[in-house]
Amino acid sequence: MEPRSGTLTPLAPGEVRVTGGFWHDLQRLNASTIIGHCLAWVERVGWLANFDRAADGSLEADHAGIEFVDSEVYKLLEAMAWEIGTDDEGELADTYRDLVNRVAAAQEEDGYLHTFFGRPGQRARFSDLEWGHELYCFGHLLQAAVARLRSGHDDQLPAVARRLADFLVVEFGETGRTAVGGHPEIEVALAEFGRATDTRTYIDLAATFVERRGHGLLAPIEHGQEYFQDDQPVRSGAVLHGHAVRALYLSAGAVDVGVEHDDEALVEAVEGQYVATLARRTYVTGGMGSHHRDEAFGDDFELPHDRAYAETCAAIGSVMVSWRLLLHSGKARYGDVIERTLLNAVLASPRRDGKAFFYSNTLHQRTPGLPPAEDSTSPRAQSSMRAPWFEVSCCPTNVARTLASAHLYFATRSDAGLQIHQFGDFTATAEVGGEELTVQIASAYPFEGDVVLKVIAAPSSPVEIALRVPAWAEAEATWSVNGDGLTVALGDGYLRVTGIVSADTGLLLSLPLTPRVVSPDPHIDDVRGQVAIERGPLVLALESIDLPDGVDTESVEIDLSSPIESTPTGARVTLRRRTDRELPWPYDGASTTDTDAGPAIVADMIPYARWANRGPSTMRVFLPTARP
Amino acid sequence: MEPRSGTLTPLAPGEVRVTGGFWHDLQRLNASTIIGHCLAWVERVGWLANFDRAADGSLEADHAGIEFVDSEVYKLLEAMAWEIGTDDEGELADTYRDLVNRVAAAQEEDGYLHTFFGRPGQRARFSDLEWGHELYCFGHLLQAAVARLRSGHDDQLPAVARRLADFLVVEFGETGRTAVGGHPEIEVALAEFGRATDTRTYIDLAATFVERRGHGLLAPIEHGQEYFQDDQPVRSGAVLHGHAVRALYLSAGAVDVGVEHDDEALVEAVEGQYVATLARRTYVTGGMGSHHRDEAFGDDFELPHDRAYAETCAAIGSVMVSWRLLLHSGKARYGDVIERTLLNAVLASPRRDGKAFFYSNTLHQRTPGLPPAEDSTSPRAQSSMRAPWFEVSCCPTNVARTLASAHLYFATRSDAGLQIHQFGDFTATAEVGGEELTVQIASAYPFEGDVVLKVIAAPSSPVEIALRVPAWAEAEATWSVNGDGLTVALGDGYLRVTGIVSADTGLLLSLPLTPRVVSPDPHIDDVRGQVAIERGPLVLALESIDLPDGVDTESVEIDLSSPIESTPTGARVTLRRRTDRELPWPYDGASTTDTDAGPAIVADMIPYARWANRGPSTMRVFLPTARP
Repeated sequence: MEPRSGTLTPLAPGEVRVTGGFWHDLQRLNASTIIGHCLAWVERVGWLANFDRAADGSLEADHAGIEFVDSEVYKLLEAMAWEIGTDDEGELADTYRDLVNRVAAAQEEDGYLHTFFGRPGQRARFSDLEWGHELYCFGHLLQAAVARLRSGHDDQLPAVARRLADFLVVEFGETGRTAVGGHPEIEVALAEFGRATDTRTYIDLAATFVERRGHGLLAPIEHGQEYFQDDQPVRSGAVLHGHAVRALYLSAGAVDVGVEHDDEALVEAVEGQYVATLARRTYVTGGMGSHHRDEAFGDDFELPHDRAYAETCAAIGSVMVSWRLLLHSGKARYGDVIERTLLNAVLASPRRDGKAFFYSNTLHQRTPGLPPAEDSTSPRAQSSMRAPWFEVSCCPTNVARTLASAHLYFATRSDAGLQIHQFGDFTATAEVGGEELTVQIASAYPFEGDVVLKVIAAPSSPVEIALRVPAWAEAEATWSVNGDGLTVALGDGYLRVTGIVSADTGLLLSLPLTPRVVSPDPHIDDVRGQVAIERGPLVLALESIDLPDGVDTESVEIDLSSPIESTPTGARVTLRRRTDRELPWPYDGASTTDTDAGPAIVADMIPYARWANRGPSTMRVFLPTARP
Repeated sequence: MEPRSGTLTPLAPGEVRVTGGFWHDLQRLNASTIIGHCLAWVERVGWLANFDRAADGSLEADHAGIEFVDSEVYKLLEAMAWEIGTDDEGELADTYRDLVNRVAAAQEEDGYLHTFFGRPGQRARFSDLEWGHELYCFGHLLQAAVARLRSGHDDQLPAVARRLADFLVVEFGETGRTAVGGHPEIEVALAEFGRATDTRTYIDLAATFVERRGHGLLAPIEHGQEYFQDDQPVRSGAVLHGHAVRALYLSAGAVDVGVEHDDEALVEAVEGQYVATLARRTYVTGGMGSHHRDEAFGDDFELPHDRAYAETCAAIGSVMVSWRLLLHSGKARYGDVIERTLLNAVLASPRRDGKAFFYSNTLHQRTPGLPPAEDSTSPRAQSSMRAPWFEVSCCPTNVARTLASAHLYFATRSDAGLQIHQFGDFTATAEVGGEELTVQIASAYPFEGDVVLKVIAAPSSPVEIALRVPAWAEAEATWSVNGDGLTVALGDGYLRVTGIVSADTGLLLSLPLTPRVVSPDPHIDDVRGQVAIERGPLVLALESIDLPDGVDTESVEIDLSSPIESTPTGARVTLRRRTDRELPWPYDGASTTDTDAGPAIVADMIPYARWANRGPSTMRVFLPTARP
């Protein structure tokens, strides 16, 4: 059930319990609203009925939705499995079992399960590996089964998944067809399912898929073979490229395969690509993917902010990769990336009421977006405000499964003790040296910087409790420990408390949440001469709703000579208004604009992830600096 | 044959003759290479054979190419017709007649002519008005016929076009189906064909199509109804929006309709939209269209340079609109736009050898592009270097027809005399007051700024000869006149010589070609803190090939405190090299980069339109300015 090797080991679902605060609210929103919203939509648009009709034989060419809508049902099942957890009782568990029944009924004799292919009037199985997404859908089914198994239930969906995985081993294994699928996902899923079922053949098939990639097995398409990472072998790349979600899912699977096969070179190759991607191809929110057209990473430093694609699913994929590299290396840096990406990129997607989502996440909205209709599906990335559902609706269910399992990213264990990577209100427990170590974390993070750790249950032997100290806090973080004979040291991004702890032991870690001015690398032309403001782990945004009437986000500059004050969730900044005169031709000189000498404007910046929750607006993450 | 009203009147093809120099070279390249290249490709990929197979009844679902490849043949016929001109003899004329025969043979009894629709195995006629492009293809057929008619030949293609246009009047006229096509083109084509054949019903049908647009007759698509300008009536828009080529072709047709129907409000509406587009949605090259995904204009000032789409066909569409507004209003400004757009945006497309083309035209290439294979088609906008042919290959044939007819944009006439709008080596002639006025223009423009005008034939009455003085030259232009009793005055963008001229009359207009530093409007975030360099009408570019080994375009800043010198075709600038240190996270502060204190780099900038002719390279139009 655990990775074969690695510096850190994940905790099981029951070992981390969210007890309140920021993440509790989000997980309640997910359980009470988002999951039900997604369920209502997959029913409404006929994507669930596809399974029923496959089962009763009435499904033909009139399949509802595009090729890979099965996967939305599977991601929803995964979200529900995490949310149900170990208990398996109550209304959600009943709903879950009903859904699994409907899915299971569509499985064919040989284990194949896909509603878009293989029936009269449909295309043949595996006739379109480039775009058909069969293996992608299978992957999400296996992931849903993993969530169920890790929650302690080896019941119907894991059985369906085993039959499917066994079918795949025959169909695509060493003696089967030499092929890969156009959208990676099966790799990470087979590796995780192999772990969860202790079946090496599944992990070996994941490795086979990873190694086959990059040899041109997929036919060329308009976006080039790099679109699905089939242009070069996984281990020979220098930086992530092509379709961002595909690249990140594949990377996650490659790390898993590397870990399981003791293939350190593969893990190092992916880590190098990911590190280069963070350095040169990532938005300040942690969002990845610069292109709308092919949903791809661009060149190094090609990061247009008003045309940022930054797909929600890519952010989730980045968290998946960071998490695996964190487990493998123990480097605090990956905890930083998870924090940044979860709080700023993933959480930007759901609307505050949980009933609409961003698919792509712009960092600069120049015109007030119009809200899409609440009762119809939207094109995947066209809406400038959050939409209830999409024709390609990968993001809402991906948000649902990520929120339902977010607490699993909070803490890990090692032989020495526990590591706390994210902050909130939760307990984490692990067996250390055969005894229980349980800690309680309490904080109003990410809005307040005090994190209190209390030991609840302690082993009799010395342990190490490590708390990640984010890179932005390292210089100013302070702490105090309540407990005798403990060693406390900050290094490599962790504050480590070492010694014999007891139920009296407490730690207060104070992280500075003073707003910070963030200057971008000059290679990022698109935000040259601009700065962003961060407060703690949150990237802030200026939304037009917070400006006085008649002032818009496109005609202000930030005055860095004035102090920036902290607000409960953001920052208060001083702006100078530009006088904009329209010129017939916008390349006629700098004289088009003057910074107004009039009174300064004081405005509040809010967390970027919370923008577009108060009606149509314009928004900027980066603000031009006022010329002196 | 001429617009019903307007300040200026176009000259006929025979009335402007290119005699040498820059445009002569380009038109020879077109005649000797580009036209033949396109012809070889439409044959090779089976797009011509579609017509043969339509004629012999063997064409079914196995049509070669996408829905609108007929149009490439028609644009090629248009290019050939302009190139053949009045003579109609020689090899090209024979080839032309053979091609027309093959096209004509595919016309059906009722006048319909399209190879993609209506046959067994094909979809029904007009069953996909959103994407089918039938009306678009018809439009290009009519345009090809217009070129033939305006060149003095009312032969087979005009006859085919008449049958097709008559079919359309029945099918789509007031008593036919209330519909429009997804891609405008039929509007401008019917208006021009109506003029060329003096048939008001064609012009009326053009007007009907223009007026029907914007009422949601087209079904919604992923990119929204604004993609094909069906979201609001043409006359109610404030700025061009949606798919750039569609918007510009439609605008050209709407101006034609407005002029022909004395509908000044319609012309004014389109002019207002176009003026706003120039002010806020146009690249410095004159290129239009910021989005790759939907090939659309973005929001105001959304102009990413590394992701510039700036489709070649949109530039051609912009020239078409500018030309119509120039004729209507006589405003020199539209001559400026034609100059900028032709020289920098349209001419960027063909490779110097005429055998490869840019489809989209980036203004910032961050990585050396790899040349596409010379013997295969490319995806439309994926190649970073020019490609020989595209799957959607609208640009090469569009370049061919534009080059073949470019001289028609050079001069106009009015009751008072002649107007010279573009410079080169050519003669222009017009009847003024019943007598001939002919002038000869000689220059080494756009590389040298002296333009010599000589009167060749003069009427006995006073005339006015006007030369456009580009806005960038107005303050420093000088001139001298050889001739008695003439009034010379500069105003409204024209140098006007008025009086009785004779064959002795000469004028020397000297335009300053000193390189100019161009600062962008601060609303264009993507080039904040950067400048472009222009020399005369040419936008310059820094290409990596012109930098010393080990220096790349991404790590230099321009030193504006050093003088910028003129070179024969561009400018020599002084650059400072930045020391770039890679940071793990590119939002950690301004300290990533220092301007090198070492020796300055002196480098030549070349005309933007000529970049990517010397092998893979990186390129920038805008350069960051060195910090003091």
